[in-house]
Amino acid sequence: MVQVNGNYLKLKAGYLFPEIARRVKAFSESNPTAPIIRLGIGDVTEPLPEACRSAMHAAIDEMGSREGFHGYGPEQGYLWLREAIAQHDFQARGCPVSAEEIFVSDGSKCDSANILDILGEGNRIAVTDPVYPVYVDSNVMAGRTGDADAAGQYGGLTYLPINADNGFTAQIPERPVDLIYLCFPNNPTGAVASREQLQAWVDYAKAHGALILFDAAYEAFIQDPTLPHSIYEIEGARDCAIEFRSFSKNAGFTGTRCAFTVVPRGLMGTSAQGEPVELWGLWNRRQCTKFNGVSYIVQRGAAAVYSPEGQAQVRDLIKFYMDNAAIIRRELSALGLRVYGGEQAPYVWLKTPAGLDSWGLFDLLLSKAHVVGTPGSGFGAAGEGYFRLSAFNSRANVEEAMGRIAAALSA
Amino acid sequence: MVQVNGNYLKLKAGYLFPEIARRVKAFSESNPTAPIIRLGIGDVTEPLPEACRSAMHAAIDEMGSREGFHGYGPEQGYLWLREAIAQHDFQARGCPVSAEEIFVSDGSKCDSANILDILGEGNRIAVTDPVYPVYVDSNVMAGRTGDADAAGQYGGLTYLPINADNGFTAQIPERPVDLIYLCFPNNPTGAVASREQLQAWVDYAKAHGALILFDAAYEAFIQDPTLPHSIYEIEGARDCAIEFRSFSKNAGFTGTRCAFTVVPRGLMGTSAQGEPVELWGLWNRRQCTKFNGVSYIVQRGAAAVYSPEGQAQVRDLIKFYMDNAAIIRRELSALGLRVYGGEQAPYVWLKTPAGLDSWGLFDLLLSKAHVVGTPGSGFGAAGEGYFRLSAFNSRANVEEAMGRIAAALSA
Repeated sequence: MVQVNGNYLKLKAGYLFPEIARRVKAFSESNPTAPIIRLGIGDVTEPLPEACRSAMHAAIDEMGSREGFHGYGPEQGYLWLREAIAQHDFQARGCPVSAEEIFVSDGSKCDSANILDILGEGNRIAVTDPVYPVYVDSNVMAGRTGDADAAGQYGGLTYLPINADNGFTAQIPERPVDLIYLCFPNNPTGAVASREQLQAWVDYAKAHGALILFDAAYEAFIQDPTLPHSIYEIEGARDCAIEFRSFSKNAGFTGTRCAFTVVPRGLMGTSAQGEPVELWGLWNRRQCTKFNGVSYIVQRGAAAVYSPEGQAQVRDLIKFYMDNAAIIRRELSALGLRVYGGEQAPYVWLKTPAGLDSWGLFDLLLSKAHVVGTPGSGFGAAGEGYFRLSAFNSRANVEEAMGRIAAALSA
Repeated sequence: MVQVNGNYLKLKAGYLFPEIARRVKAFSESNPTAPIIRLGIGDVTEPLPEACRSAMHAAIDEMGSREGFHGYGPEQGYLWLREAIAQHDFQARGCPVSAEEIFVSDGSKCDSANILDILGEGNRIAVTDPVYPVYVDSNVMAGRTGDADAAGQYGGLTYLPINADNGFTAQIPERPVDLIYLCFPNNPTGAVASREQLQAWVDYAKAHGALILFDAAYEAFIQDPTLPHSIYEIEGARDCAIEFRSFSKNAGFTGTRCAFTVVPRGLMGTSAQGEPVELWGLWNRRQCTKFNGVSYIVQRGAAAVYSPEGQAQVRDLIKFYMDNAAIIRRELSALGLRVYGGEQAPYVWLKTPAGLDSWGLFDLLLSKAHVVGTPGSGFGAAGEGYFRLSAFNSRANVEEAMGRIAAALSA
């Protein structure tokens, strides 16, 4: 008899965002005329930059002739894209990252889940709480955890609470860990990590032979010039960190699909026998065997992000969404709510009003204000009592949503 | 210390196609003026169908306005694409496959490797020999095999030889297996399976509770109307089979990236405790957690394959490549070589001439004829002494390559 992977049976309920989609669908089927505004899933809304569209049109035209046709590309991505990334996102910021260390992919969600393929089963794993659910669920599915407890925390994982009490900074754990997921600017809290905080993590990882999985999908939203955009701005990070980046949020590629992962040469793990093994080679083998590269057309679109026009258009998009975030912060603060984030990140993280838990506020805002947010508890037990609103929407919708939330909460 | 997945260390040498690329690169660096013709990797060469290009242009234009913008799509693919697939590829052939059973992805290579995520570690696995290397390597990487022996066969796998002696049909094994990889029309041999042969496999799988992983990436090349295109044309297959399909070879999407996997509702595996578990739900959860859907633009291109224009253009492409295959068969036969395949599939499989093993013929054709093929031994121990030539190239290149091969072999 064919056996299934029983680890899947440990998973609690649905993945967060499909569960939200399910509730919204049920509500709108019962209330077909309710004009729903979505500030939930963190999906961008504004048009794809003109530079990217032009580049993709040109790529499609190339595919129309035998001479310009592109079949299978390199599994790691085209060199012209990897070089543009290395130069603009890393070397220009003083990070010695080379093109061969860039692996182009179809999404950071995929990469941050797939990275477990190359890592051993015995690693002790730390995640923040709240956390992007994919880090946890992919570990559950890969059999790297025990069962979930009543609060939804899985056995074997080390949870690092981030909340208002510790200023939303993840504390280095007292018991040793081998694998640490960090995401800054943070999803969902919108918090950032200073250079000193990241240096402490890198120092810890180097001292313990641990690996940091650093998710920098929101780096483009950083406004404060003293904050690091990449873990590789930190001394020693090449010896202990893999970084995930995406075009989803800066250039609006959530529906176009392009991202990349940085695996430095010389970054080592160990075999069960204690022999050092270079992670670059394992990830390269993983991608060559289980992935076939990103669409040529899409890679041309991503490369256009680095053109002068593309850079200007991305800056405009970021400014637009960050102006939204400022409006959300201002209006919610005016209602007397405690708000966090939204200054270096497109997410505003707020404390739910007295008497409402996370899903309670979700249901109230959906039914009374027809506004979709994300319940903090969906990101982990320590997210209970918090709620995430995303700045990804039109100006008119953000302003309308704030008015409706004010009415709903004061009703 | 962070530990790596030690199963990767069991892998023999490089994945086949990167190894070929390495040898070709080395040759062309030493012989920069040699006009190389590639009949190796099985990559298409002719322009993307006009219907697909038009649809993708229109999709990019949609992405240029707020109203037409598409962010995150359904992880399973857009319903309009899933419905078109279900209707044209299955219902039109009498297979009761519904849209919700179609999971759109960025490649069959990815899907056929990722499917192991949802299956247990104790399954007994059968593969043909020769075989598409991804089936084997993904099992090695997931720890489902032992070490490789001197012939390159991994412990724990049941190898089913397919060769001239058994008419390139995989025999049902005597010892029971739980998971069976079948690919028809076959890569690399170009062989096909009759309705009766597939019925025998389905009957075996149903009797033993086994799961068939059926790779039909080359179904569009079938010329004989009595041959099945889908495993679901076989009575009982919905209870025991998952099917992989791709737009890569029919519509030339190798560089554009779109494929799909069919997981029937009601198809069951068992938990370690012997409870039945529906595979659809597990794969849906896998895709929602570890994948973020295919580019909207690319899905629009794939849907255009099912338009009347798209269907006509795909038929023309198939005819073009199959005419190439006929030329290859004819010319190699005229040289006295024994050739197989190439009649219902874009691959011609030939017996190497006396005194040459598979890599020997590879190196001879590369150095003397500047033609790249694929050594049969790269597909498994039983492929030794065979060689694959692909029909994917321009007419002029195919004719030129045949002339050069004739000269090289008679020199």
